[in-house]
Parts: sequence; C-alpha cells; structure tokens
Amino acid sequence: MQIAIILYPGMTALDAVGPYEVFRFIPDAEIRFVSNTPQPIITDSGVLVMGSTHSYDETPNSDIVLVPGSSADTTTAMADRKLTEWLKKVHETSKLTLSVCSGALVLGAAGILEGHPATTHWIAQKALYSFGAEPRRDERVVKSGKIITGAGVSAGIDLALSVVKELYGQERAEIIQLLIEYDPRPPVDAGHPAKASASVYKIAKEEMLQAAKNPRNIISVPAILWRKALKKLR
Amino acid sequence: MQIAIILYPGMTALDAVGPYEVFRFIPDAEIRFVSNTPQPIITDSGVLVMGSTHSYDETPNSDIVLVPGSSADTTTAMADRKLTEWLKKVHETSKLTLSVCSGALVLGAAGILEGHPATTHWIAQKALYSFGAEPRRDERVVKSGKIITGAGVSAGIDLALSVVKELYGQERAEIIQLLIEYDPRPPVDAGHPAKASASVYKIAKEEMLQAAKNPRNIISVPAILWRKALKKLR
Repeated sequence: MQIAIILYPGMTALDAVGPYEVFRFIPDAEIRFVSNTPQPIITDSGVLVMGSTHSYDETPNSDIVLVPGSSADTTTAMADRKLTEWLKKVHETSKLTLSVCSGALVLGAAGILEGHPATTHWIAQKALYSFGAEPRRDERVVKSGKIITGAGVSAGIDLALSVVKELYGQERAEIIQLLIEYDPRPPVDAGHPAKASASVYKIAKEEMLQAAKNPRNIISVPAILWRKALKKLR
Repeated sequence: MQIAIILYPGMTALDAVGPYEVFRFIPDAEIRFVSNTPQPIITDSGVLVMGSTHSYDETPNSDIVLVPGSSADTTTAMADRKLTEWLKKVHETSKLTLSVCSGALVLGAAGILEGHPATTHWIAQKALYSFGAEPRRDERVVKSGKIITGAGVSAGIDLALSVVKELYGQERAEIIQLLIEYDPRPPVDAGHPAKASASVYKIAKEEMLQAAKNPRNIISVPAILWRKALKKLR
C-alpha cells in the first residue's frame, strides 16, 4: 500500500501530518512525501520545514494520494501544471484520492472533482463550485466514489481514520486511534462556523484572508541551500 | 512570546505539529524549532523529516517550551544531557513548560516533574513514578503550576488550545479552533484505554512495544548530508 502525501511550498503542515500519523500505523504502508523534486518544503507559517522524499516522476502509481491545503497560497499549487497533470494521471489508477482542507481546490484544478460532492475548509466552500463540485459544508469527511475530501486542517485525522476503517476494518482503525490516543476533548467549542459566535467567525475569516494576502517566507528551497534557507527562516 | 518546540531524532511528528498549528495563530508568537544544532530531524516513522531552525544555545529564554514524545525511542532524549540541562535552565524562567505524550518523560529526566501531577501517553503512565511525578491517566491535559503535560500524540492540540485559552482568553482559543476547523468527529471510539476493547488494547500495546524495539532509520542528519539522508530514507 503506497501512500503519497504531496508537499508544496506554503502548505499547512497539520493537513499532511494528521493523516500521516494515522497511516503510518497501517502494517503494510509505504508512505512517501512527494513534490516536484525531493527537497525541504517551507510550510505556511514560514518557519516549519518538512522534507519531501520523492519526485512526482518517481511516484507514478500510488495506491493512495493525499493533497494538503494551504492557509497562505493554494493558488500556486492549483496553477502548478506538473502537480495537476501528475494528480490526473495517478488518480486514474489510485485506490483512493484524498484531500484535506483547501487541498480540495487542487484536486478541483486537476479536474478531479467535476460532478462530485466534496468538502474543504469552511472559508473555501464556495470555490468548490468553480470546479463543478457540490459543497457539503456541514460534513467533515465526504466520500464520492474513490474521492474522499476532508474539511479544514484537523479534519485530516478523522479522514485518515475513516480511510483505515474502510480499507482495513474497524478494529485496525480503533488500534490506530488508541495508538495516537485520539480521544479529543477540546477546551472550547467553536470548531465549525455553525458553532462559533458571530464575532469569532468574523475575526477568524479576516485573519484567514489576511494570511492569504501576506504569505511569510513561502519559498521553495533547493536541497543544497538548506543552510541558506535557515537564515531566511530567522 | 517566544515558543520553543524541541525536535529530536525519533520524535513523533504530530506531538509537535498539533501544538505548532495552534500556536502559530497567536498574534505575537515567534515559534522556533530547537535542537542541538539546526538540522533536518528524522521522526519516528523513519520517513518524515522536519527541520530545526535554532540551537539550544541560541534559545536561552523562551517564554514557552514544548517537548514532544517518541514512539520509537524516548530514552535517547532522556539521556541527552545537553537537552535536559537546557530544559532545566529554560524552565527556570519560562512562563510555561509543556510536554506532549512521552515528552513528559524527558521533562522527568530533567528533574522538572518531581512532586507534580502529570500525564503522558497511556503506555508510559507508570514511568512517571520514576521521576517523582503523580500519573493522572484519565486526564488529557494536566496543569501543575507552570507545567502542563498532555496525553498521547493527538492530545497536543487540546493542550495547546488550553494554553491559548489561559494566556489569551477564550475568544482567541475559539478563533484558533475555528481556523484549524477543530471540530473532531472520530469515526470510531477507542481513543483511550478506558474506551478500547481488550483485544484492541492488547494489539495496540504490543505494536507500541514493538515500535520501541525496532526503530526505523532514526538517525541524526548533518544538514549538509540532506541528499545522502534522502537515500537512507528510501
């Protein structure tokens, strides 16, 4: 079971790391972090670096492919023809094609969501229409054929557990849930627009739009420039 | 507000990335990923690399310090005198000292948990006694003075939100919860030993002990060897 998790500059780390932490406890899983070329990738905070291990070319036939979202700049990934062409191709033979958060818009840009119900981060729900998808804003995980989309950021954990439950059964999903002690007890209760106060929603929306306008240090770092990249991070 | 998140070889990525994704939406936060020297750090899966940005020496006075756990090898971090001496020192002046998962054992090894109630991953609860701490196995987040410990892996998200609530108020915690759409809906319900079946608990325990016996590719990678490291990752 080869699982390809896409990394791109400006992505949101938890979108990828949540599912990764679930999938890595699948007994026969081979997880790859995939980008155009193997390299350090700076995430949307401008401070956390994650490493991709394989190129698209080296990864033509993954069983599962997952695209994370970005709070800073999803449009560059959407416009990245190498990425979208690769997604189209790998989707033809994948068992499951997944997105978390605004990663759904990247699937959309690759023409994969046409005619499918889907979800994404609450701030990006309307954008799904542009790709012929049907937004399901109140659902955390939406399955349509072999496409499964998750809501914002933290939803990737629920999405990955539901994938494990489907492919490997309830017991394996429970084992992994216990291994990562996923027994959530949030100290506040505003995790969805339907639950948040008007003022919390307004501020969150403004901050999200602001983040997209002012991406911080979101650059692609050639591997050899790791030390130079560190200087930029500071 | 300087927040230092420790990275060490073999650590569990989500232990760090969950809290990071919360803390980065604190308006005045400066987040640093700290290790002995800035370098790529291979996590416990042997495949995900995260980058540290600062050394211990460069980071003597953080306001918040967070130590993640490891499913593969917490003992090396516990025995790392550079790390534990630094923790002791930074704890003297920190506003808050935090751990997620078996990161609590590293705090313990630094002598920080003596006499304090604390929690950790369910598999490591008894080990807390060795450091003079009082295990609270049914609590997800335990606060004792300025020390806050979280349960296993995913508990870091709840821990970080409770920190934000305490330091910045309920509204900021709600805004961040909404930004990361943290409205958990796990598709199964076995996230704590008290909820898991006997067989799920038994298998999870065996797999956890097995992981600790057979760490995969957990090595420290000099920055300049990034490309060579990639070869090892494959």
